[in-house]
Amino acid sequence: MKINVIPTAQQAQGIDFSGKTAVVIDVLRATSVITTALDNGAREVIPVKTIEEAQSLYATCDNALRCGERNAVKIEGFDLGNSPLEYKKKTVEGKTLILTTTNGTNALNNIKGADEVVLACFRNAKAMANHLVGLSHRGSRDIIIVCAGTEGRFSMDDGLCAGMIIELLKQNTEVETDDFGLLLNRCYNESKDNLFGALSECYHLKRLFMLGFYDDIKFCLETNCVGTVPILKNDKIVKL
Amino acid sequence: MKINVIPTAQQAQGIDFSGKTAVVIDVLRATSVITTALDNGAREVIPVKTIEEAQSLYATCDNALRCGERNAVKIEGFDLGNSPLEYKKKTVEGKTLILTTTNGTNALNNIKGADEVVLACFRNAKAMANHLVGLSHRGSRDIIIVCAGTEGRFSMDDGLCAGMIIELLKQNTEVETDDFGLLLNRCYNESKDNLFGALSECYHLKRLFMLGFYDDIKFCLETNCVGTVPILKNDKIVKL
Repeated sequence: MKINVIPTAQQAQGIDFSGKTAVVIDVLRATSVITTALDNGAREVIPVKTIEEAQSLYATCDNALRCGERNAVKIEGFDLGNSPLEYKKKTVEGKTLILTTTNGTNALNNIKGADEVVLACFRNAKAMANHLVGLSHRGSRDIIIVCAGTEGRFSMDDGLCAGMIIELLKQNTEVETDDFGLLLNRCYNESKDNLFGALSECYHLKRLFMLGFYDDIKFCLETNCVGTVPILKNDKIVKL
Repeated sequence: MKINVIPTAQQAQGIDFSGKTAVVIDVLRATSVITTALDNGAREVIPVKTIEEAQSLYATCDNALRCGERNAVKIEGFDLGNSPLEYKKKTVEGKTLILTTTNGTNALNNIKGADEVVLACFRNAKAMANHLVGLSHRGSRDIIIVCAGTEGRFSMDDGLCAGMIIELLKQNTEVETDDFGLLLNRCYNESKDNLFGALSECYHLKRLFMLGFYDDIKFCLETNCVGTVPILKNDKIVKL
Protein backbone atom coordinates (compact mmCIF):
# COMPACT_ATOMS: atom_id res chain seq x y z
CA MET A 1 0.00 0.00 0.00
CA LYS A 2 1.39 3.36 -1.02
CA ILE A 3 0.59 6.33 1.20
CA ASN A 4 1.11 9.98 0.37
CA VAL A 5 0.35 12.73 2.86
CA ILE A 6 -0.73 16.26 1.93
CA PRO A 7 0.01 18.91 4.62
CA THR A 8 -3.01 21.19 4.03
CA ALA A 9 -6.46 21.21 2.42
CA GLN A 10 -5.25 23.94 0.05
CA GLN A 11 -2.48 21.70 -1.30
CA ALA A 12 -5.01 19.01 -2.16
CA GLN A 13 -6.12 21.23 -5.04
CA GLY A 14 -4.69 20.04 -8.32
CA ILE A 15 -3.69 16.62 -6.92
CA ASP A 16 -4.88 13.66 -9.01
CA PHE A 17 -6.88 11.44 -6.66
CA SER A 18 -8.12 9.05 -9.36
CA GLY A 19 -7.82 5.40 -8.35
CA LYS A 20 -7.00 6.45 -4.77
CA THR A 21 -8.72 6.47 -1.41
CA ALA A 22 -8.65 9.93 0.18
CA VAL A 23 -8.54 10.11 3.98
CA VAL A 24 -9.38 13.58 5.32
CA ILE A 25 -8.23 14.54 8.82
CA ASP A 26 -9.28 17.64 10.73
CA VAL A 27 -8.83 16.57 14.35
CA LEU A 28 -9.69 19.98 15.83
CA ARG A 29 -12.54 19.66 15.19
CA ALA A 30 -14.48 18.96 11.97
CA THR A 31 -13.74 15.26 11.45
CA SER A 32 -14.03 14.59 15.20
CA VAL A 33 -17.44 16.30 15.16
CA ILE A 34 -18.66 14.38 12.10
CA THR A 35 -17.43 11.02 13.44
CA THR A 36 -19.13 11.69 16.78
CA ALA A 37 -22.39 12.81 15.16
CA LEU A 38 -22.66 9.73 12.92
CA ASP A 39 -21.62 7.46 15.79
CA ASN A 40 -24.46 8.95 17.83
CA GLY A 41 -26.99 8.15 15.13
CA ALA A 42 -27.15 11.24 12.91
CA ARG A 43 -28.67 10.22 9.57
CA GLU A 44 -26.18 12.17 7.46
CA VAL A 45 -23.94 15.23 7.50
CA ILE A 46 -24.09 17.60 4.53
CA PRO A 47 -20.97 19.76 4.32
CA VAL A 48 -21.53 23.21 2.77
CA LYS A 49 -19.18 26.12 2.18
CA THR A 50 -21.14 29.16 3.31
CA ILE A 51 -23.60 30.17 6.00
CA GLU A 52 -26.03 31.22 3.25
CA GLU A 53 -25.87 27.76 1.63
CA ALA A 54 -26.53 26.19 5.02
CA GLN A 55 -29.59 28.41 5.57
CA SER A 56 -31.13 27.78 2.14
CA LEU A 57 -30.54 24.02 2.32
CA TYR A 58 -32.08 24.02 5.81
CA ALA A 59 -35.21 25.65 4.42
CA THR A 60 -35.73 22.64 2.11
CA CYS A 61 -34.87 19.86 4.60
CA ASP A 62 -37.02 17.97 7.08
CA ASN A 63 -35.63 17.05 10.46
CA ALA A 64 -32.40 19.01 9.99
CA LEU A 65 -30.04 21.02 12.19
CA ARG A 66 -27.77 23.89 11.13
CA CYS A 67 -24.27 23.28 12.49
CA GLY A 68 -20.89 24.95 12.30
CA GLU A 69 -18.47 27.66 13.30
CA ARG A 70 -16.67 30.75 12.16
CA ASN A 71 -13.45 31.66 14.00
CA ALA A 72 -14.03 28.59 16.20
CA VAL A 73 -17.31 30.00 17.57
CA LYS A 74 -20.91 28.78 16.88
CA ILE A 75 -22.63 30.68 14.08
CA GLU A 76 -25.39 33.01 15.30
CA GLY A 77 -28.85 31.48 14.87
CA PHE A 78 -27.46 27.99 14.22
CA ASP A 79 -28.52 24.95 16.24
CA LEU A 80 -25.09 23.54 17.01
CA GLY A 81 -21.50 24.81 16.95
CA ASN A 82 -18.32 22.84 16.22
CA SER A 83 -17.92 21.19 19.60
CA PRO A 84 -18.21 17.39 19.39
CA LEU A 85 -19.65 17.40 22.91
CA GLU A 86 -22.82 19.06 21.60
CA TYR A 87 -23.48 16.17 19.21
CA LYS A 88 -25.12 13.86 21.74
CA LYS A 89 -27.44 11.00 20.76
CA LYS A 90 -30.57 12.76 22.05
CA THR A 91 -29.72 15.82 19.94
CA VAL A 92 -28.62 14.29 16.62
CA GLU A 93 -30.25 10.85 16.30
CA GLY A 94 -32.04 10.49 12.96
CA LYS A 95 -31.23 14.08 12.01
CA THR A 96 -29.71 15.59 8.86
CA LEU A 97 -26.87 17.88 9.93
CA ILE A 98 -25.99 20.77 7.62
CA LEU A 99 -22.43 21.67 8.56
CA THR A 100 -20.18 24.56 7.60
CA THR A 101 -16.71 25.00 9.14
CA THR A 102 -13.78 27.26 8.29
CA ASN A 103 -11.46 24.58 7.00
CA GLY A 104 -12.49 20.97 7.51
CA THR A 105 -15.43 21.07 5.13
CA ASN A 106 -13.33 22.98 2.55
CA ALA A 107 -10.86 20.09 2.45
CA LEU A 108 -13.64 17.89 1.06
CA ASN A 109 -14.28 20.30 -1.81
CA ASN A 110 -10.63 20.16 -2.87
CA ILE A 111 -10.63 16.39 -3.40
CA LYS A 112 -11.59 15.59 -6.97
CA GLY A 113 -11.96 12.14 -8.50
CA ALA A 114 -11.02 9.88 -5.57
CA ASP A 115 -12.47 6.35 -5.60
CA GLU A 116 -13.56 6.90 -2.02
CA VAL A 117 -13.37 9.77 0.50
CA VAL A 118 -13.38 8.83 4.19
CA LEU A 119 -12.96 10.99 7.31
CA ALA A 120 -10.58 10.22 10.14
CA CYS A 121 -9.69 11.52 13.59
CA PHE A 122 -7.99 10.08 16.66
CA ARG A 123 -11.32 8.68 17.91
CA ASN A 124 -11.83 6.39 14.90
CA ALA A 125 -8.19 5.86 13.89
CA LYS A 126 -8.21 2.10 14.47
CA ALA A 127 -11.57 1.59 12.74
CA MET A 128 -10.23 3.64 9.82
CA ALA A 129 -7.03 1.59 9.61
CA ASN A 130 -9.03 -1.65 9.65
CA HIS A 131 -11.22 -0.33 6.84
CA LEU A 132 -8.18 0.70 4.77
CA VAL A 133 -6.49 -2.66 5.29
CA GLY A 134 -9.71 -4.33 4.15
CA LEU A 135 -9.70 -2.22 0.98
CA SER A 136 -6.10 -3.15 0.25
CA HIS A 137 -6.94 -6.84 0.60
CA ARG A 138 -9.71 -6.43 -1.95
CA GLY A 139 -7.53 -4.62 -4.50
CA SER A 140 -4.47 -2.43 -4.58
CA ARG A 141 -5.98 0.87 -3.66
CA ASP A 142 -3.42 3.47 -2.63
CA ILE A 143 -4.09 6.20 -0.13
CA ILE A 144 -3.70 9.95 0.01
CA ILE A 145 -4.10 11.38 3.49
CA VAL A 146 -5.17 15.03 3.45
CA CYS A 147 -4.38 16.91 6.66
CA ALA A 148 -6.88 19.80 6.69
CA GLY A 149 -4.59 22.25 8.49
CA THR A 150 -5.46 25.57 10.08
CA GLU A 151 -5.61 28.93 8.30
CA GLY A 152 -3.87 27.44 5.28
CA ARG A 153 -0.97 26.04 7.30
CA PHE A 154 -0.01 22.53 8.40
CA SER A 155 -1.41 21.68 11.84
CA MET A 156 0.38 19.23 14.14
CA ASP A 157 -2.83 17.63 15.47
CA ASP A 158 -3.82 16.44 11.99
CA GLY A 159 -0.23 15.36 11.34
CA LEU A 160 0.07 13.18 14.44
CA CYS A 161 -3.26 11.54 13.60
CA ALA A 162 -1.95 10.77 10.10
CA GLY A 163 1.19 9.34 11.75
CA MET A 164 -1.00 7.15 13.97
CA ILE A 165 -3.04 5.78 11.06
CA ILE A 166 0.19 4.99 9.16
CA GLU A 167 1.46 3.15 12.27
CA LEU A 168 -1.75 1.10 12.54
CA LEU A 169 -1.54 0.25 8.82
CA LYS A 170 2.11 -0.80 9.16
CA GLN A 171 1.08 -3.31 11.81
CA ASN A 172 -1.26 -5.02 9.35
CA THR A 173 0.08 -4.60 5.85
CA GLU A 174 3.08 -3.64 3.73
CA VAL A 175 3.28 0.15 3.66
CA GLU A 176 5.36 2.49 1.52
CA THR A 177 5.04 6.15 2.41
CA ASP A 178 6.51 9.43 1.21
CA ASP A 179 8.99 11.43 3.31
CA PHE A 180 6.22 13.50 4.90
CA GLY A 181 4.41 10.34 5.99
CA LEU A 182 7.68 8.95 7.39
CA LEU A 183 8.19 12.12 9.40
CA LEU A 184 4.65 12.08 10.82
CA ASN A 185 4.80 8.38 11.63
CA ARG A 186 8.08 8.85 13.48
CA CYS A 187 6.78 11.88 15.38
CA TYR A 188 3.60 10.02 16.34
CA ASN A 189 5.57 7.06 17.68
CA GLU A 190 7.65 9.40 19.77
CA SER A 191 4.54 11.21 21.09
CA LYS A 192 1.92 8.50 21.42
CA ASP A 193 2.14 8.14 25.20
CA ASN A 194 1.41 11.84 25.69
CA LEU A 195 -0.42 13.33 22.72
CA PHE A 196 -1.60 16.28 24.78
CA GLY A 197 1.97 17.14 25.78
CA ALA A 198 3.24 16.66 22.25
CA LEU A 199 0.61 19.08 20.99
CA SER A 200 1.08 21.67 23.74
CA GLU A 201 2.93 24.03 21.39
CA CYS A 202 0.59 23.39 18.43
CA TYR A 203 -0.87 26.69 17.21
CA HIS A 204 -4.43 25.46 16.74
CA LEU A 205 -4.60 23.63 20.06
CA LYS A 206 -3.28 26.70 21.91
CA ARG A 207 -5.89 28.85 20.18
CA LEU A 208 -8.79 26.58 21.14
CA PHE A 209 -7.40 26.33 24.67
CA MET A 210 -7.40 30.14 24.97
CA LEU A 211 -11.00 30.19 23.75
CA GLY A 212 -11.97 27.81 26.57
CA PHE A 213 -12.43 24.62 24.56
CA TYR A 214 -10.37 22.45 26.91
CA ASP A 215 -12.99 19.67 27.13
CA ASP A 216 -13.26 19.57 23.32
CA ILE A 217 -9.50 19.16 22.95
CA LYS A 218 -9.44 16.35 25.52
CA PHE A 219 -12.33 14.60 23.73
CA CYS A 220 -10.70 14.98 20.28
CA LEU A 221 -7.40 13.50 21.52
CA GLU A 222 -9.02 10.30 22.84
CA THR A 223 -7.94 7.44 20.58
CA ASN A 224 -9.78 4.43 19.17
CA CYS A 225 -13.04 4.84 21.04
CA VAL A 226 -15.54 4.53 18.18
CA GLY A 227 -15.97 2.12 15.28
CA THR A 228 -17.62 4.62 12.96
CA VAL A 229 -16.01 5.39 9.58
CA PRO A 230 -17.64 8.42 7.89
CA ILE A 231 -17.70 8.21 4.10
CA LEU A 232 -18.66 10.82 1.50
CA LYS A 233 -21.42 9.63 -0.86
CA ASN A 234 -23.17 11.96 -3.31
CA ASP A 235 -21.98 15.05 -1.42
CA LYS A 236 -23.31 13.70 1.89
CA ILE A 237 -21.32 12.11 4.68
CA VAL A 238 -22.81 8.91 6.05
CA LYS A 239 -21.72 6.03 8.27
CA LEU A 240 -19.98 3.30 6.28
CA MET B 1 12.41 35.43 16.22
CA LYS B 2 9.52 33.95 14.26
CA ILE B 3 10.30 31.01 11.98
CA ASN B 4 8.05 29.57 9.30
CA VAL B 5 9.04 26.52 7.28
CA ILE B 6 7.89 25.82 3.71
CA PRO B 7 8.02 22.11 2.72
CA THR B 8 8.92 22.53 -0.98
CA ALA B 9 10.36 25.08 -3.41
CA GLN B 10 7.07 25.02 -5.30
CA GLN B 11 5.14 26.16 -2.21
CA ALA B 12 7.44 29.18 -1.85
CA GLN B 13 5.63 30.66 -4.86
CA GLY B 14 3.12 33.26 -3.80
CA ILE B 15 4.53 33.57 -0.25
CA ASP B 16 5.23 37.14 0.85
CA PHE B 17 8.91 37.25 1.85
CA SER B 18 9.07 41.01 2.36
CA GLY B 19 10.86 42.01 5.55
CA LYS B 20 12.01 38.42 6.01
CA THR B 21 15.24 36.46 5.71
CA ALA B 22 14.83 33.43 3.45
CA VAL B 23 16.96 30.38 4.21
CA VAL B 24 17.04 27.88 1.33
CA ILE B 25 17.97 24.27 2.05
CA ASP B 26 18.71 21.59 -0.55
CA VAL B 27 20.95 19.19 1.34
CA LEU B 28 21.16 16.61 -1.47
CA ARG B 29 22.90 18.39 -3.08
CA ALA B 30 22.60 21.94 -4.42
CA THR B 31 23.17 23.96 -1.24
CA SER B 32 25.88 21.53 -0.07
CA VAL B 33 27.62 21.99 -3.44
CA ILE B 34 27.35 25.79 -3.37
CA THR B 35 28.57 26.02 0.24
CA THR B 36 31.53 23.76 -0.56
CA ALA B 37 32.41 25.66 -3.74
CA LEU B 38 32.43 29.06 -2.02
CA ASP B 39 34.27 27.65 0.97
CA ASN B 40 36.95 26.39 -1.42
CA GLY B 41 37.39 29.83 -2.94
CA ALA B 42 35.00 30.00 -5.90
CA ARG B 43 34.43 33.67 -6.74
CA GLU B 44 30.69 33.34 -7.22
CA VAL B 45 27.98 30.89 -8.20
CA ILE B 46 25.41 32.00 -10.76
CA PRO B 47 22.26 29.87 -10.59
CA VAL B 48 20.41 29.50 -13.89
CA LYS B 49 17.28 27.55 -14.85
CA THR B 50 18.20 25.86 -18.12
CA ILE B 51 21.18 24.22 -19.80
CA GLU B 52 20.83 26.71 -22.67
CA GLU B 53 21.05 29.67 -20.26
CA ALA B 54 24.16 28.13 -18.72
CA GLN B 55 25.78 27.73 -22.14
CA SER B 56 25.06 31.26 -23.33
CA LEU B 57 26.17 32.84 -20.06
CA TYR B 58 29.38 30.75 -20.21
CA ALA B 59 30.12 32.16 -23.66
CA THR B 60 30.23 35.69 -22.17
CA CYS B 61 32.17 34.90 -18.96
CA ASP B 62 35.87 34.77 -18.26
CA ASN B 63 37.28 32.11 -16.00
CA ALA B 64 33.99 30.24 -15.65
CA LEU B 65 32.88 26.63 -15.29
CA ARG B 66 29.58 25.08 -16.37
CA CYS B 67 28.16 23.03 -13.51
CA GLY B 68 25.06 21.03 -12.77
CA GLU B 69 22.91 17.96 -13.19
CA ARG B 70 19.78 16.56 -14.73
CA ASN B 71 18.28 13.45 -13.10
CA ALA B 72 21.18 13.54 -10.61
CA VAL B 73 23.78 13.03 -13.35
CA LYS B 74 26.36 15.54 -14.73
CA ILE B 75 25.17 17.38 -17.86
CA GLU B 76 26.96 16.29 -21.04
CA GLY B 77 29.69 18.72 -22.03
CA PHE B 78 29.65 20.49 -18.65
CA ASP B 79 32.78 20.90 -16.53
CA LEU B 80 31.35 19.75 -13.21
CA GLY B 81 28.33 17.78 -12.04
CA ASN B 82 26.40 18.13 -8.78
CA SER B 83 28.79 16.22 -6.52
CA PRO B 84 30.29 18.46 -3.81
CA LEU B 85 33.43 16.29 -3.92
CA GLU B 86 34.23 17.65 -7.38
CA TYR B 87 34.35 21.24 -6.09
CA LYS B 88 37.90 21.10 -4.74
CA LYS B 89 40.02 24.22 -4.16
CA LYS B 90 42.32 23.50 -7.11
CA THR B 91 39.30 23.22 -9.41
CA VAL B 92 37.11 26.14 -8.31
CA GLU B 93 39.34 28.78 -6.70
CA GLY B 94 38.76 32.19 -8.25
CA LYS B 95 36.24 30.78 -10.72
CA THR B 96 32.72 31.84 -11.65
CA LEU B 97 30.49 28.78 -11.46
CA ILE B 98 27.40 28.73 -13.65
CA LEU B 99 25.10 26.20 -12.01
CA THR B 100 21.85 24.58 -13.08
CA THR B 101 20.18 21.84 -11.00
CA THR B 102 16.76 20.24 -11.18
CA ASN B 103 15.35 21.72 -8.01
CA GLY B 104 17.76 23.58 -5.72
CA THR B 105 18.36 26.47 -8.09
CA ASN B 106 14.62 26.67 -8.86
CA ALA B 107 13.90 27.31 -5.19
CA LEU B 108 15.86 30.55 -5.46
CA ASN B 109 13.67 31.75 -8.32
CA ASN B 110 10.52 31.25 -6.27
CA ILE B 111 11.62 33.61 -3.49
CA LYS B 112 10.45 37.12 -4.22
CA GLY B 113 11.10 40.22 -2.15
CA ALA B 114 13.05 38.78 0.79
CA ASP B 115 15.40 41.17 2.63
CA GLU B 116 18.10 38.54 2.35
CA VAL B 117 18.40 35.07 0.81
CA VAL B 118 20.98 32.71 2.33
CA LEU B 119 21.74 29.04 1.60
CA ALA B 120 22.06 26.36 4.24
CA CYS B 121 23.02 22.70 4.53
CA PHE B 122 24.21 20.45 7.33
CA ARG B 123 27.85 21.47 6.69
CA ASN B 124 27.26 25.16 7.48
CA ALA B 125 24.29 24.83 9.86
CA LYS B 126 26.07 26.33 12.86
CA ALA B 127 27.59 29.19 10.85
CA MET B 128 24.11 29.87 9.44
CA ALA B 129 22.50 29.87 12.89
CA ASN B 130 25.17 32.29 14.19
CA HIS B 131 24.52 34.58 11.23
CA LEU B 132 20.74 34.49 11.82
CA VAL B 133 21.13 35.19 15.54
CA GLY B 134 23.36 38.14 14.64
CA LEU B 135 20.66 39.48 12.32
CA SER B 136 18.03 39.15 15.04
CA HIS B 137 20.22 41.12 17.45
CA ARG B 138 20.48 43.93 14.92
CA GLY B 139 16.73 44.10 14.25
CA SER B 140 13.72 41.88 14.39
CA ARG B 141 14.07 40.05 11.14
CA ASP B 142 11.90 36.95 10.93
CA ILE B 143 12.85 33.86 8.97
CA ILE B 144 11.23 31.68 6.37
CA ILE B 145 13.07 28.42 5.79
CA VAL B 146 12.41 26.98 2.33
CA CYS B 147 13.08 23.24 2.06
CA ALA B 148 13.76 22.67 -1.65
CA GLY B 149 12.29 19.16 -1.77
CA THR B 150 12.60 16.55 -4.50
CA GLU B 151 10.38 16.27 -7.56
CA GLY B 152 7.90 18.69 -6.01
CA ARG B 153 7.60 16.75 -2.76
CA PHE B 154 8.92 17.35 0.74
CA SER B 155 12.30 15.67 1.31
CA MET B 156 13.34 14.49 4.76
CA ASP B 157 17.01 15.51 4.37
CA ASP B 158 16.06 19.17 3.92
CA GLY B 159 13.55 18.88 6.77
CA LEU B 160 16.03 17.50 9.30
CA CYS B 161 18.50 20.25 8.38
CA ALA B 162 15.76 22.84 9.00
CA GLY B 163 15.08 21.13 12.34
CA MET B 164 18.79 21.38 13.19
CA ILE B 165 18.99 25.09 12.39
CA ILE B 166 15.88 25.73 14.52
CA GLU B 167 17.54 23.81 17.36
CA LEU B 168 20.74 25.88 17.08
CA LEU B 169 18.69 29.09 17.05
CA LYS B 170 16.70 28.00 20.12
CA GLN B 171 19.97 27.64 22.02
CA ASN B 172 20.80 31.30 21.40
CA THR B 173 17.59 33.26 21.08
CA GLU B 174 13.84 33.26 21.70
CA VAL B 175 12.24 31.27 18.87
CA GLU B 176 8.59 30.95 17.85
CA THR B 177 7.97 28.47 15.05
CA ASP B 178 4.95 27.17 13.14
CA ASP B 179 3.73 23.59 13.56
CA PHE B 180 5.85 22.34 10.67
CA GLY B 181 8.98 23.81 12.24
CA LEU B 182 8.03 22.22 15.58
CA LEU B 183 7.68 18.85 13.90
CA LEU B 184 11.04 19.10 12.11
CA ASN B 185 12.82 20.33 15.21
CA ARG B 186 11.44 17.43 17.23
CA CYS B 187 12.35 14.90 14.55
CA TYR B 188 15.88 16.33 14.28
CA ASN B 189 16.42 16.08 18.03
CA GLU B 190 15.32 12.47 17.93
CA SER B 191 17.61 11.70 14.96
CA LYS B 192 20.69 13.82 15.54
CA ASP B 193 22.92 11.02 16.78
CA ASN B 194 22.33 9.02 13.61
CA LEU B 195 21.29 11.23 10.70
CA PHE B 196 22.22 8.57 8.18
CA GLY B 197 19.99 6.01 9.89
CA ALA B 198 17.14 8.50 10.25
CA LEU B 199 17.33 9.21 6.53
CA SER B 200 17.68 5.60 5.42
CA GLU B 201 14.08 5.49 4.20
CA CYS B 202 14.19 8.96 2.64
CA TYR B 203 13.24 8.75 -1.04
CA HIS B 204 15.94 11.11 -2.34
CA LEU B 205 18.74 9.56 -0.30
CA LYS B 206 17.77 6.07 -1.46
CA ARG B 207 17.73 7.27 -5.06
CA LEU B 208 21.23 8.81 -4.84
CA PHE B 209 22.46 5.70 -3.03
CA MET B 210 21.19 3.50 -5.90
CA LEU B 211 22.98 5.77 -8.38
CA GLY B 212 26.25 5.20 -6.52
CA PHE B 213 26.59 8.58 -4.77
CA TYR B 214 27.37 7.10 -1.36
CA ASP B 215 30.38 9.36 -0.74
CA ASP B 216 28.33 12.43 -1.66
CA ILE B 217 25.62 11.50 0.82
CA LYS B 218 28.20 10.96 3.58
CA PHE B 219 29.79 14.32 2.81
CA CYS B 220 26.44 16.16 2.73
CA LEU B 221 25.43 14.73 6.14
CA GLU B 222 28.58 15.98 7.89
CA THR B 223 27.54 18.77 10.25
CA ASN B 224 29.13 22.11 11.14
CA CYS B 225 32.40 21.70 9.30
CA VAL B 226 32.54 25.00 7.40
CA GLY B 227 32.01 28.63 8.36
CA THR B 228 30.82 29.77 4.94
CA VAL B 229 27.38 31.35 4.58
CA PRO B 230 26.35 31.69 0.90
CA ILE B 231 24.20 34.74 0.18
CA LEU B 232 22.31 35.76 -2.96
CA LYS B 233 23.30 39.24 -4.21
CA ASN B 234 22.17 40.58 -7.60
CA ASP B 235 21.32 37.08 -8.84
CA LYS B 236 24.74 35.76 -7.88
CA ILE B 237 25.62 33.68 -4.86
CA VAL B 238 28.71 34.83 -2.99
CA LYS B 239 30.35 34.18 0.35
CA LEU B 240 28.96 36.48 3.06
